[in-house]
Amino acid sequence: MMKLTRAAILSVGDELLGGRTINTNAAYMAQRLTDAGFLVVATDTVGDDEFAIADSLKSLAGRADTVVVTGGLGPTPDDVTREALAGAAGKLLVPDRALRAQVMEKAGGKAPRRNARMARVPDGAVILPNPVGMAAGLRVEMGGTPVYALPGVPLELEAIFEQSVLPDMKATFAGTKPMPSRVLRVFGLREAEVAEKLGELLDRARDPVVGVTVRDGIITITITGASAEQRAAEIRKKLDRHVFGEGDQTLAGVVLDAMKERGLTLALAESITGGMLASLVVDQPGASEVLKGSIVAYVPEAKHELLDVPKTVLSKAGTVSEETALRMARAARKKLSADVGIATTGVAGPDLDERGTPTGRGFVAVVGPKGEKVEKVSCRGDRNAVRRRFAWIALDLLRHRLLG
Amino acid sequence: MMKLTRAAILSVGDELLGGRTINTNAAYMAQRLTDAGFLVVATDTVGDDEFAIADSLKSLAGRADTVVVTGGLGPTPDDVTREALAGAAGKLLVPDRALRAQVMEKAGGKAPRRNARMARVPDGAVILPNPVGMAAGLRVEMGGTPVYALPGVPLELEAIFEQSVLPDMKATFAGTKPMPSRVLRVFGLREAEVAEKLGELLDRARDPVVGVTVRDGIITITITGASAEQRAAEIRKKLDRHVFGEGDQTLAGVVLDAMKERGLTLALAESITGGMLASLVVDQPGASEVLKGSIVAYVPEAKHELLDVPKTVLSKAGTVSEETALRMARAARKKLSADVGIATTGVAGPDLDERGTPTGRGFVAVVGPKGEKVEKVSCRGDRNAVRRRFAWIALDLLRHRLLG
Repeated sequence: MMKLTRAAILSVGDELLGGRTINTNAAYMAQRLTDAGFLVVATDTVGDDEFAIADSLKSLAGRADTVVVTGGLGPTPDDVTREALAGAAGKLLVPDRALRAQVMEKAGGKAPRRNARMARVPDGAVILPNPVGMAAGLRVEMGGTPVYALPGVPLELEAIFEQSVLPDMKATFAGTKPMPSRVLRVFGLREAEVAEKLGELLDRARDPVVGVTVRDGIITITITGASAEQRAAEIRKKLDRHVFGEGDQTLAGVVLDAMKERGLTLALAESITGGMLASLVVDQPGASEVLKGSIVAYVPEAKHELLDVPKTVLSKAGTVSEETALRMARAARKKLSADVGIATTGVAGPDLDERGTPTGRGFVAVVGPKGEKVEKVSCRGDRNAVRRRFAWIALDLLRHRLLG
Repeated sequence: MMKLTRAAILSVGDELLGGRTINTNAAYMAQRLTDAGFLVVATDTVGDDEFAIADSLKSLAGRADTVVVTGGLGPTPDDVTREALAGAAGKLLVPDRALRAQVMEKAGGKAPRRNARMARVPDGAVILPNPVGMAAGLRVEMGGTPVYALPGVPLELEAIFEQSVLPDMKATFAGTKPMPSRVLRVFGLREAEVAEKLGELLDRARDPVVGVTVRDGIITITITGASAEQRAAEIRKKLDRHVFGEGDQTLAGVVLDAMKERGLTLALAESITGGMLASLVVDQPGASEVLKGSIVAYVPEAKHELLDVPKTVLSKAGTVSEETALRMARAARKKLSADVGIATTGVAGPDLDERGTPTGRGFVAVVGPKGEKVEKVSCRGDRNAVRRRFAWIALDLLRHRLLG
């Protein structure tokens, strides 16, 4: 029998309220908590205002079994989460000697008065060590409800959340079990095409529940319920080779793993993606086993100077052409002595190229032991979206080549 | 005299709580409200639960002068915002004949029972027409606080928000005027160092209010209040050359503009940043006027093959060395016939390099008409954070060279 433990998240920070900052912390924790079987019932955001924080904490503690609050634990006067937490829990804010010594040591003795604020905690709070920064996390009981306070710096938050908060929550709410769930990652179909193919499987009243979200052209299908695994297999069949991975897998990660398995190395020649394709691959640990390098030939003459594309090809076929893409991929492969070469060329906008090619048009080429392949690309969006789209398409083209 | 009107936003929907869906509606409205002079004091999210919605509405109405709630106005059984709103306002849910006729007409007579739910409104509610969909918006008074309810579909929400909600809010709170504000962007100082330099300017009780946030090592200082401009000038003086821009400016954008102004071109040689540096520059419109290209020499042998770093230098000084960084920058500059060359080399982790150099260590080099400069880098974080840090440091080094 599964027990549902309700969790709530409160994010603190004036900057989160103007609509210009994306709150990645709340999304990170919500996902981790959901995956661990907690039911996230609310994610709230308030400014750096002691009373607003205290009011929200009280409201959330009334509706959830446990609360995580992030932000406002730094040394500056607008960091008031400690005060709010003490107020809401009806506790005094007291100095913690051991914590103070740690903070001073980490600060190298600098700004002692300011940093001393970080060592004042609500009476009875448990200190949650911060392995990567100065501000410690706190665990405070608010009328029987455990409330965890974490710094807002993502790296510090994630470290304390994984090391202290999640294990403590699991121990405190021992009956909590993850609801079986599967996540499929899909590329190469539109959201409406996926909806068409899945049909009535998407009805909210069905068990398991199937949700579809799309971001940057990559579709995530979440299947939650006792029979999630069978349903995932059924959906995989319907969407076939468009499913590139599961869970948190990325296109770059999947391609890198497939290359590693086959002992293949990769070289890139980038124009429109301008280093983004290399960066996506390099971001995977162990990338150096596969990626030798990338030649980012951004201006037309660099395609000649660095990639030996003849000037006549550039002037006749054009920099954005099938032939240029192929020659770029071949040259990168050869110069870096790699098994596979990939190239991208196209128009990212807002301006057209010298021939009036519209934004979003271009080519990606893959050259390797199985032969050569060029794909024409036509997509919409702003500069960044177009460039990302070209990178996904290049990786997906390589994935299909590797899989047969 | 400026009057601060406090606004709160409540988003309703189970799908918003799992951490996999980004709530763009709340960000959109928060930005529009902030720009119109409203002080957004809270943005909360709850699931499709009548009581959770009602509780949140009451909590927000107690802390804000006006509330917008989005989502849960559709025809399916999990759409319960109407019921929650009526309950929180202590009003009966009554059928609205005119609205019912409209909904039926829009639905073409389909599913009359299901759609009839959308014509039941809290007694006394003002109907806000939906020009692009079926679910109408509502304006309900909750103990004197105007509460606006909008459908969650972004296109419909934006249409009703612009056409009805924002004009009604401005009329209701006629004294509301945009608050003068300035944003400064800072690199090269830690948050605590900024706090130290700004001292009591950060006191929350002072006018204008000065807020400090940090993300990926870039610090944003927001100054809000009647004398924001003077205070911004004062802070600029204190932080001096560490202030690289204002508003939404990025390091890459500032550097690109400075290069353009001076008519200088740029070539990159990237190892640890692996194309990220090029990608940051290419992401700026008009990048092709400045950036010629980037040679991403990721594996050691590529530094020899593509950038002519002698094998003896790679084996004696090492791939992560001052000499290798300098030679990489010089080669990129020469091969791409650019005015300025930049290079990055270092260890991104999780593994050490062949000499046991720890994660986060490395060098960035800038080579140009004003001479050569290498900076030793030592930073912490995960693979992605370390790589981003190297990219910022390289751009900032170039910025300082350009400015003096």
